[in-house]
Amino acid sequence: MIQHITIVGVGLIGGSFALALREAGHTAEIVGVGRNPQTLARAVERGIIDSWHTSIAEAVSKTDLVLLATPVGALDAVFKAMAPALGNDAIVTDAGSVKQSVINSARQWLPRLENFVPAHPIAGTEHSGVEAGFSTLFRDKRLILTPINETSPQASSVVENLWQATGAVVEHMDPAHHDAVFAATSHMPHMLAFSLVETLYRMDKESPLLHHTGGGFADYTRIASSDPVMWRDVCLNNRDALLQALEKFTAGLDTLVQAIDEKDADTLEQLFTTAKETRDSRVVPADRIKAGQQK
Amino acid sequence: MIQHITIVGVGLIGGSFALALREAGHTAEIVGVGRNPQTLARAVERGIIDSWHTSIAEAVSKTDLVLLATPVGALDAVFKAMAPALGNDAIVTDAGSVKQSVINSARQWLPRLENFVPAHPIAGTEHSGVEAGFSTLFRDKRLILTPINETSPQASSVVENLWQATGAVVEHMDPAHHDAVFAATSHMPHMLAFSLVETLYRMDKESPLLHHTGGGFADYTRIASSDPVMWRDVCLNNRDALLQALEKFTAGLDTLVQAIDEKDADTLEQLFTTAKETRDSRVVPADRIKAGQQK
Repeated sequence: MIQHITIVGVGLIGGSFALALREAGHTAEIVGVGRNPQTLARAVERGIIDSWHTSIAEAVSKTDLVLLATPVGALDAVFKAMAPALGNDAIVTDAGSVKQSVINSARQWLPRLENFVPAHPIAGTEHSGVEAGFSTLFRDKRLILTPINETSPQASSVVENLWQATGAVVEHMDPAHHDAVFAATSHMPHMLAFSLVETLYRMDKESPLLHHTGGGFADYTRIASSDPVMWRDVCLNNRDALLQALEKFTAGLDTLVQAIDEKDADTLEQLFTTAKETRDSRVVPADRIKAGQQK
Repeated sequence: MIQHITIVGVGLIGGSFALALREAGHTAEIVGVGRNPQTLARAVERGIIDSWHTSIAEAVSKTDLVLLATPVGALDAVFKAMAPALGNDAIVTDAGSVKQSVINSARQWLPRLENFVPAHPIAGTEHSGVEAGFSTLFRDKRLILTPINETSPQASSVVENLWQATGAVVEHMDPAHHDAVFAATSHMPHMLAFSLVETLYRMDKESPLLHHTGGGFADYTRIASSDPVMWRDVCLNNRDALLQALEKFTAGLDTLVQAIDEKDADTLEQLFTTAKETRDSRVVPADRIKAGQQK
């Protein structure tokens, strides 16, 4: 029975996880860990955590389960710091957008890999920080478990049950496959949105144009408001898969640019038609994603 | 007094324009022009138009105002076909996403440029066709007039008043400036969305991944569902400005790719921070765009 949960990082993901568990009636004591006492005090005020530590070793010494919800770049140091203090039965899970590098760190530091359950909730907003969490963030969203060979079915089941209590729909995936799929479908789109807005920032300095953007542009670039540190860490930790995806994108964009340059109407229409048909038939809009329909 | 309006193209823009005018109490007879009698008959059923012609010359012979709402690639032929039949006082306006090429065609074919009022409604959805129009499409959205030197204030005023009746907020802009601004802020984002989805289509053929995309991806790629013919024509007709914008984007993306390749954490974080701050401070979300707030 999970009676004591430690959440490292009380931002959008960690905060929403705690709020969702409480709303589902879970009675575990929840302890927050972070670097900033003001943030942690605010998390207590918001009802996210019951108490807090800035020392992860102290926080985890009697915990049943640790959720790591920091940017993935911080996880190696977190594993190292908490490993000596973890109890024999303490389950460790994470919420990182990248899985292989997190697993590599866990292999290096964690004493009992059977209790490690790597996971990735496919949910988020463009907001971050202690004010960003809310109890329904994970409802009807996917939670991807990427257990390793050592992960025990018991530990996996505990983590799965907690995420199901938040409203998430749990899937299992191989870690390497996870990283390749999300490099293409999530990490790359974020890169393009960041890069687009950064390009317009540069163009705007030469000749003002940003004041002409409107609602459509704001919708399209929402993901460019995401946390810079989180995405820096995704780039550093999923480098190879992301570079591969971006190389394929760049080749496709080159074809498009060449078609525009050559006024090649047929190629343009064919490319846009392929994209439209793919988007219309293969990509499920948010309002149609419900448990059991998202595959 | 505008008692007879001809709308060439009864799709999303033309259809919504007619429905909005009727909802605002405008009593003009509205005649539709298109190539497909079934589509035109459906537009009558939907209450968009009162009657229709497949011959534009017949449709415009007694009209007070013509709205051209076809993809911009069709406009040159439309100007040519209707020019001999236009009455002396008939006002001609358009809704093209590109302005200079449309103005060039108008200069070549229209007999009375004082009656020509180029315009661009900044509104749309990812849907197109006769079923896509709805009366509130333009409400609180911008309508950009790009009058030429010859455009008479009277004609400009008539067009402005009609668009205001649809709920749009009218702005004036120089045509060349319009084309450069929208190349960067609208046409380029559409290219990136089309190209991203087309890239994933290619990657999915090698190793399935599209079934893993979810609501966020669907939101981000919504504009890749836009009409391929319309966007083909935008590319062909705003080629130079679009290529310039895409060249700047490609340079920025190269910088980003290089930073990922070199694991350059500082450059990555700085680039993402610039984008986030620009998006947060300079781009107005759709729900905050109201008349008078959109600048």
